[in-house]
Amino acid sequence: MDAPAGTSLGDVTLGELRLAARNHGMPLEALRYAVTPVGLHYLLVHYDIPAVDPQSWRLTLGGAVERTLSPSLADLRAMPAVTRPVTLECAGNGRALLGPRPVSQPWLTEAVGTGEWTGVPLRVLLDEAGLRDDCVELLFTGLDRGLEGGVEQNYERSLPRPDALGDDAILAYELNGEPLPPQHGAPLRLVMAGWYGMAHVKWLGTITALTEPFRGYQQEVGYRLYDSEGKAGARLTRMRPRSLTIPPGLPDFMTRERFLDVGPCRLEGRAWSGWGRVERVEVSVDGGCTWDDAQLGEPVGDRAWRGWSYVWQAQVPGSYVISSRATDAAGHTQPVEPPWNLKGYANNEIERVPVTVRGGA
Amino acid sequence: MDAPAGTSLGDVTLGELRLAARNHGMPLEALRYAVTPVGLHYLLVHYDIPAVDPQSWRLTLGGAVERTLSPSLADLRAMPAVTRPVTLECAGNGRALLGPRPVSQPWLTEAVGTGEWTGVPLRVLLDEAGLRDDCVELLFTGLDRGLEGGVEQNYERSLPRPDALGDDAILAYELNGEPLPPQHGAPLRLVMAGWYGMAHVKWLGTITALTEPFRGYQQEVGYRLYDSEGKAGARLTRMRPRSLTIPPGLPDFMTRERFLDVGPCRLEGRAWSGWGRVERVEVSVDGGCTWDDAQLGEPVGDRAWRGWSYVWQAQVPGSYVISSRATDAAGHTQPVEPPWNLKGYANNEIERVPVTVRGGA
Repeated sequence: MDAPAGTSLGDVTLGELRLAARNHGMPLEALRYAVTPVGLHYLLVHYDIPAVDPQSWRLTLGGAVERTLSPSLADLRAMPAVTRPVTLECAGNGRALLGPRPVSQPWLTEAVGTGEWTGVPLRVLLDEAGLRDDCVELLFTGLDRGLEGGVEQNYERSLPRPDALGDDAILAYELNGEPLPPQHGAPLRLVMAGWYGMAHVKWLGTITALTEPFRGYQQEVGYRLYDSEGKAGARLTRMRPRSLTIPPGLPDFMTRERFLDVGPCRLEGRAWSGWGRVERVEVSVDGGCTWDDAQLGEPVGDRAWRGWSYVWQAQVPGSYVISSRATDAAGHTQPVEPPWNLKGYANNEIERVPVTVRGGA
Repeated sequence: MDAPAGTSLGDVTLGELRLAARNHGMPLEALRYAVTPVGLHYLLVHYDIPAVDPQSWRLTLGGAVERTLSPSLADLRAMPAVTRPVTLECAGNGRALLGPRPVSQPWLTEAVGTGEWTGVPLRVLLDEAGLRDDCVELLFTGLDRGLEGGVEQNYERSLPRPDALGDDAILAYELNGEPLPPQHGAPLRLVMAGWYGMAHVKWLGTITALTEPFRGYQQEVGYRLYDSEGKAGARLTRMRPRSLTIPPGLPDFMTRERFLDVGPCRLEGRAWSGWGRVERVEVSVDGGCTWDDAQLGEPVGDRAWRGWSYVWQAQVPGSYVISSRATDAAGHTQPVEPPWNLKGYANNEIERVPVTVRGGA
């Protein structure tokens, strides 16, 4: 297969490395934490982290509303609050596993994390402003600004009115019980539980009630599934199911290969889906030829990952490939073949974790 | 020049990407913070972040001492404490800028951060244990374990006795006023102010007073300056001077190139050295042909970086390269040519930040 424009069959470019050096994945051993500690949650920043003074900052909510609002952070903190654990994954997670590889932020499988977000249900603020009947979408504009695809822009994305009024939309000012860190959108970000990360607009400046669908860059050009001719297909919304394993045994520093000793090995991991509760996780230690059901723990929340475990009797020294596969209540599961698309979104192919089992003494 | 074994003239390999995806640099706009917020400080983990229960954990201090000690975290917290801002840089920072490029964690220039560390001066604990006269070094062994260069090992490094007894060695249990996060060495790490990151052993399990110099992997094989034939030279200790600029203007998402408009542009950055106070920072906007002195702020601490600023009159549209150069009280400064060595350590070459100045409306 020839590599279409914007993709590569070769090694990682300096441009991709620049992105990988500043954005970061969650080291997979951090799957052990039900709620990801700050600093281990994945992070993708499109432009620069903006410097925002939380004292003088105000949110503006305007457009097709009865009353324009401009609450301060203190105003928002005085409103009814919810706290929810939410699993958040970048839509580009798995991109660098594709062949040819779409050239952008080169995620392997680590672009995920679960935060405990506290904030105001978006609906509360929209009710206070009074959405006019002709409002069809809500636009969320961040304070981060840069160039992308030749367009100078603030990062901004819209949500259909029904989604914005649903339970999954939160205006969050705390993460894990502390004020939002700068890199996660301080002083306020949108959390859109169950959706890929692109919907969770950080460093919110304004919310605009629109009477026409938003046609900006991050909605029409970015975050869509393209075919190899560059034709834009569906928009990205909810996260496809995925399961990941805490890499067992010991790592090699340079190769990240795993080594473990003969004997029983308790495999553990976590699985999630934006389309419904994870109902089943299966484990394979032979590269996906045979599968066994894992034991499921309770989900950390109704929009957060679910732990699983499986005891593997690693009796024979040699090379193995560990995989796990999630299936959700909506019947979605994970594919063996990566779902290739030109920009490398939503690749929820089954993980492959090579391990070497070493003989006893 | 041919690329010696273990180096590359080509693009970044999948192995390097695996390291870059889990370790992370400090996005350079975070130079704006005197103390780096948690999650933005650079992070390098040799093996896996270990799971340590702070309740049952105890430090063991033994070897050539009068009294073996095994304090709990509560015991350590009850001892005299110090809090110090310390700038910490990875010895491999700048590695991926070298040509040929040593193949390892592919840092550009972001492997730095300044934390405010709180803990017990190491000397206090050593005095309590009573170092025997024949003790020549102190060995610090972490709880993180893996393979490196074919050797299964816990991460461990030693310090000469005089350095261990000096003011720069702290057993830290807090970062920025909070308990250490898992990824920075919870519940206890060594901070060795002024030294490259390899000395700041995380997840401390034991300290051993040695009567012979330590010859383990991270002392004899890792963290030394090698020539191109693979001959090991000097050990790494203190950080060479370096200055970095907050990237001005707006970034392009994909290329990270910077764009700014004609007019005055206030450049700001921070500079540090492990060998003494930074006494001078110079700025160039023409790729190092001409230099002007920057204005210096007060250092954040005696072992922490120092802010600087410089107003650039960006009058003519076009392409520019911004550089800054630090000189310390010991007379060390930064080279134009990268100081090449086989493993890519201590490359403090002068930064080059390409920017495009755009014409007015």
